[in-house]
Amino acid sequence: MRAAVLRDGAIVVRDDVPEPEPGFGHVLVQVKACGICGSDLHFAKHGERMMALGEEMSGMPSLGTPKLDFGRDIFMGHEFAAEVLEVGPDTQSFAAGTIVTSIPILLSMTGIEPIVYSNGTVGGYAERMLLSAPMLLEVPNGLDPRHAALTEPMAVGLHAVNKSRIEPGEGALVLGCGPVGIAVIAALKQKGIEPIVTADYSPARRALATAMGAHEAVDPDAEPSFVAWARAGRGPLVVFEAIGVPGIIDGALRDAPAQSRIVVVGVCMEPDSITPFWAVSKELNLQFVLGYDPTEFAGSLRSIAEGEIDVTPIITGEVGIDGVAGAFDELGDPDRHCKILVVP
Amino acid sequence: MRAAVLRDGAIVVRDDVPEPEPGFGHVLVQVKACGICGSDLHFAKHGERMMALGEEMSGMPSLGTPKLDFGRDIFMGHEFAAEVLEVGPDTQSFAAGTIVTSIPILLSMTGIEPIVYSNGTVGGYAERMLLSAPMLLEVPNGLDPRHAALTEPMAVGLHAVNKSRIEPGEGALVLGCGPVGIAVIAALKQKGIEPIVTADYSPARRALATAMGAHEAVDPDAEPSFVAWARAGRGPLVVFEAIGVPGIIDGALRDAPAQSRIVVVGVCMEPDSITPFWAVSKELNLQFVLGYDPTEFAGSLRSIAEGEIDVTPIITGEVGIDGVAGAFDELGDPDRHCKILVVP
Repeated sequence: MRAAVLRDGAIVVRDDVPEPEPGFGHVLVQVKACGICGSDLHFAKHGERMMALGEEMSGMPSLGTPKLDFGRDIFMGHEFAAEVLEVGPDTQSFAAGTIVTSIPILLSMTGIEPIVYSNGTVGGYAERMLLSAPMLLEVPNGLDPRHAALTEPMAVGLHAVNKSRIEPGEGALVLGCGPVGIAVIAALKQKGIEPIVTADYSPARRALATAMGAHEAVDPDAEPSFVAWARAGRGPLVVFEAIGVPGIIDGALRDAPAQSRIVVVGVCMEPDSITPFWAVSKELNLQFVLGYDPTEFAGSLRSIAEGEIDVTPIITGEVGIDGVAGAFDELGDPDRHCKILVVP
Repeated sequence: MRAAVLRDGAIVVRDDVPEPEPGFGHVLVQVKACGICGSDLHFAKHGERMMALGEEMSGMPSLGTPKLDFGRDIFMGHEFAAEVLEVGPDTQSFAAGTIVTSIPILLSMTGIEPIVYSNGTVGGYAERMLLSAPMLLEVPNGLDPRHAALTEPMAVGLHAVNKSRIEPGEGALVLGCGPVGIAVIAALKQKGIEPIVTADYSPARRALATAMGAHEAVDPDAEPSFVAWARAGRGPLVVFEAIGVPGIIDGALRDAPAQSRIVVVGVCMEPDSITPFWAVSKELNLQFVLGYDPTEFAGSLRSIAEGEIDVTPIITGEVGIDGVAGAFDELGDPDRHCKILVVP
């Protein structure tokens, strides 16, 4: 079958990927739509460095995940909705034809394999893939699978907002209105947070931020983000850093009001310099966040299916498997795209 | 009267300081004891840089505090206990002879002046000083004023522990057993936290940590701090960074278990480099803390006066006003001293 894979830092299309065969506990699905995540672009560029940094680090539970080999093809695609084709032997699951989505995790007898970057486990940039039966969620309400594919990135925003412990009466400043910032804005809006002040250099992203519920969307060139907050904000401030490049955290430490909380959702891959004196002087809190839990994932699907969050404006493009490489390039321009879906 | 002041980065003794005169709301006191704080040593060395960094920063409420002039003498000493000599006109306060302590803040008609570093307001490295009547707390139970002088530094530890929201069932790792780390250990002990694992290169400081309630005190040269935690710790971890030099925060990000909270109590004056990837991967939380609130200050005095916290082992030296300069030098050696009191 066909799949777009990462090979030597570039996306190439293969048509010789072995057909996945569902074993016990597995479900074979036909991918209906899979979003391209900013972290995939990051990974294509910085993957080996990420792995090296990961190996230097301790304190993570071991999940038995196989080690990645960068000399071999890497499957990607973790924001998918799919149709059930075949259920593995002795396995209970949904009937063929059901539209499903799942946390991108494949259970095996040897461990937990994230369906994110893998030499062996096929992800959503492919015609078909395996999922774990206990993880499957049925896509309800006849929701378009292309919208259901947004469950995962929107769950990232929901998780960041939950981890921030923000409550009505507090305000938010979202730095960066790419897909992560947009997911944060949607979750803040749903929680009734007001005002939601956002900042991005791109006019298209600012328009999208407003469409998704931001009360202010400022161009930092015209008005620095924290000046905009001082003008339009009220209540204790929670900052969401959704840019992920060096210097953003330190700028927030310098400019945020005393006692602010700063939630770091952007993944800065480089070492970054901070000025602890500013953070100490103002007793700031930095909460770094990643991913979501199964409840948040299910909540995200429900919000989209119930129409509480309309993801339509987020989807700015659609490509086939042949178009993945081009889409990776296009996503570099923040004014053209937010989320491109791969529809195999 | 006599006072030790900071002049061109060095401590000098003056005997020509004008006698402070209590105005409305003020109380003139005789200093009985004043602790030398690590931040005073820091300030003597980095004061101008601190002020410059402070001016770059926004987000702090303006308190009308006069600007410091480094070309003039600077009064210091903010950990004091004192005896009431004279109450200002039309002012209600304690009778002469009462032993008191106070949050180091002097109220005036033009603003709030911290009694920490000032060109005009005399601090505790002097024979006499002014305090604000509404801020005074009577030292109870006939408590030795030299012990009451520890109220302020112990409140710093209590505040850090409160801000951490640590609860019994969680464990603590305290990096650095100088006066700040020791105050944290005492507050953790009082809260019933177990285990309290601590790390310091100095044998004397490790012994003091154990005396103050640490369950483990390790030499990081013999066993890295987080390895010691993995061996002796249990429950979710709260790390207290009480060292304040570059690299410590990043080491904690690298080595702390996923979901740990890191409370930064040490004030690192230099820019510091961090690896956000580690913090994001493990969803770490960094809470920067400073100072205490009036309730914590009062709670700290009560704990010392009730004998719940025995500060005796912390006090390792006593000097007169003439000895302040020498004490600043001595405090550079972590194996000789924890807290030196100035007893004018």
